[in-house]
Amino acid sequence: MSLIVMKFGGSSVGTPERMQRVAKRIIERQQEGNDIVVVVSAMGDTTDDLIDQSKQLNPNPPAREMDMLLTVGEQISIALLSMTIHQSGHRAVSFTGWQAGIRTEAVHGKAKMTNIHPERVFKALEQGNVAIIAGFQGMTEEGEITTLGRGGSDTTAVAMAAAMNADVCEIYTDVDGIYSTDPRVVKNARKLNEISYDEMLELANLGAAVLHPRAVEYAKHNNVKLVVRSSFTQNEGTSVKEEAVMEQGVVVRGIAFDKNVARISIMGVEDVPGVLANVFGALANNGIDVDIIVQSGVQDGKADFSFTVSGDDKDKAIRVIEGIRSTVSFREATSEADLVKVSIVGAGMVSNPGVAAKMFATISSLGVSIKMVSTSEIKCSCVITAEPLNDVVRALHTAYGLDTADQVFVGGPQERR
Amino acid sequence: MSLIVMKFGGSSVGTPERMQRVAKRIIERQQEGNDIVVVVSAMGDTTDDLIDQSKQLNPNPPAREMDMLLTVGEQISIALLSMTIHQSGHRAVSFTGWQAGIRTEAVHGKAKMTNIHPERVFKALEQGNVAIIAGFQGMTEEGEITTLGRGGSDTTAVAMAAAMNADVCEIYTDVDGIYSTDPRVVKNARKLNEISYDEMLELANLGAAVLHPRAVEYAKHNNVKLVVRSSFTQNEGTSVKEEAVMEQGVVVRGIAFDKNVARISIMGVEDVPGVLANVFGALANNGIDVDIIVQSGVQDGKADFSFTVSGDDKDKAIRVIEGIRSTVSFREATSEADLVKVSIVGAGMVSNPGVAAKMFATISSLGVSIKMVSTSEIKCSCVITAEPLNDVVRALHTAYGLDTADQVFVGGPQERR
Repeated sequence: MSLIVMKFGGSSVGTPERMQRVAKRIIERQQEGNDIVVVVSAMGDTTDDLIDQSKQLNPNPPAREMDMLLTVGEQISIALLSMTIHQSGHRAVSFTGWQAGIRTEAVHGKAKMTNIHPERVFKALEQGNVAIIAGFQGMTEEGEITTLGRGGSDTTAVAMAAAMNADVCEIYTDVDGIYSTDPRVVKNARKLNEISYDEMLELANLGAAVLHPRAVEYAKHNNVKLVVRSSFTQNEGTSVKEEAVMEQGVVVRGIAFDKNVARISIMGVEDVPGVLANVFGALANNGIDVDIIVQSGVQDGKADFSFTVSGDDKDKAIRVIEGIRSTVSFREATSEADLVKVSIVGAGMVSNPGVAAKMFATISSLGVSIKMVSTSEIKCSCVITAEPLNDVVRALHTAYGLDTADQVFVGGPQERR
Repeated sequence: MSLIVMKFGGSSVGTPERMQRVAKRIIERQQEGNDIVVVVSAMGDTTDDLIDQSKQLNPNPPAREMDMLLTVGEQISIALLSMTIHQSGHRAVSFTGWQAGIRTEAVHGKAKMTNIHPERVFKALEQGNVAIIAGFQGMTEEGEITTLGRGGSDTTAVAMAAAMNADVCEIYTDVDGIYSTDPRVVKNARKLNEISYDEMLELANLGAAVLHPRAVEYAKHNNVKLVVRSSFTQNEGTSVKEEAVMEQGVVVRGIAFDKNVARISIMGVEDVPGVLANVFGALANNGIDVDIIVQSGVQDGKADFSFTVSGDDKDKAIRVIEGIRSTVSFREATSEADLVKVSIVGAGMVSNPGVAAKMFATISSLGVSIKMVSTSEIKCSCVITAEPLNDVVRALHTAYGLDTADQVFVGGPQERR
């Protein structure tokens, strides 16, 4: 008998029909001989509706009271899902985060879990129940209700799987797995059977928003086997685990890309200690996330360096930099918008020389110039102009042998909470 | 400095404007120099909406999961009310039932409170907060979420007042106090300044649905002073307490009435031990509430007796009685519908002979015949035909000196949960 954690997002339970389909799916999995723990998010628009109500009364509500309000969404889901399972003649018991023993630090709105005491959940399973747990929430040692922030329900599922030593944590989503690239761009993108935690993290951060990075990190840290699969089909999905098998001759797992990237360059910066800390400290203090940073050496005591930000932050970033001229001496700051970042990701890259060179050659052969490059052990990213992005992704997908003829993408709008 | 518990029903917080008015009321009361504990119900239609959602998925949901679902309603109220108080620059902390330390027996849907541990609520007050508590809910010793059933929020308020030794428990409603009779029937009904627990119980049970009888019983048992007052006016309201002052020369506090009463008579019942237990046991097992029971002696080993039920239960009651002919021998069962019960209530009656006689005389003087009579120490009830009810109530109101010239009734649809 296996212990399986099944996580369903808000759109999977957004209507009575979907709730019934999820209940059926859970019962099928139980009747295969498994103990089932379910983690579920708030239904459809519940969270947004609650936020709207609160904004009418207080545009800046205290985070503690916001947690008190929003945890209601998952509590509604667990009660209704439990009732739905009962209606089909099976047994289920719902648990709020605190009832499931999820303890967090004393922070509201984005608490981290500290530990889990799943005794009541184990007892419910022993008595033949499906155990249904509210995602996204927990309780401090002082009995305060907290929420876990973005990706919270994914993280709840992974944490319950780790605490209960589950055999697998299945994340049910609107898509039927992780793809080698966005199937909307490359028609014959392949669904991956397996992917490593690290590869998944690179793909998630680069835009494949199926699984929250925090949940992947948690799974990696606790060695929880994840499976990403569709709520709507019986397809096998994608396994995410420590060591993922690579097909013969394939070193790149997938092609990821970020749209709406801007480059900022600061030219003729006086090279004194602490100058980079000053620049990036100021950007961070103004809430600007910086991605790639490139510095190309020092000449005559002056350096040029470039970095990328979201296109939306471009003008603000320039203003912040002009604002620190009193502490940082430089000649000029320039910017360029309408760029994209395209990345190849694969654990095999580290032991295969020439993988990056093939990327540069493929991009160049399309007459596209590469503006910035950044590499890690399992990733190589290039910043290019936006216009040829789809051609570049298709060419890379083919060049690294990822194309498949018979893949059908099953997808829809993605959910993240 | 006084400690005041303020209870607001669902319609008092049903819109953003009402929520803001309640918040203002709370802050005013605090700024008069009081510590304030607030108990609040679910907003407007929230509970009904949740029930509708559940019925779509399971027409007979398990009571445990129904409690999990419905307690959400009060949790939304407390969070939003707390945010509203913060918005006006004051401090508030919300508590679910379990956070406020409300422990109940292990029964779902209508649990009784066993004890209260209000340490966290006291601490919140010490730190200068308004403490806002979800009504209608609690937790078992095993950590299961429970609801208290009908009148639950009133009872929560009274119980918190008792546990915290509050100076007064103020119940805010849609009407501005308890009246000597229904002001829709008697235009110059008087608002009562004071009323005893026992009188209130008789009036509540007889139809003045402002305060739930269970809450009054709890207040009487713990000697908690109640004040019933309007959410919408600054009027003083009605105090409910152990000893209520009677005005000189007045022995009756109020005139109550129940509409839609039916009389059932069972004639020629063989007078053997246990016959009454058989009849009323069968009625109770079929969910039929019996009110007045009258038996008028035994003749030739046969008795006649009559009782009243709600008009809606008349036919069912007759069917139940015909169904027990095998165990209870009787000649025939008859019924009469379209009756009403009118009652005079007052603690002074016990020491004033002739009060009941005046009631019979007043009713008779209108040419109305009395079909049944029932008396207790502080109440005398007569069953009559429905048609002359309003005239009878007006005549009794005048006869017992309750009329007043300058009273203005402020009321609306009544709330009860």
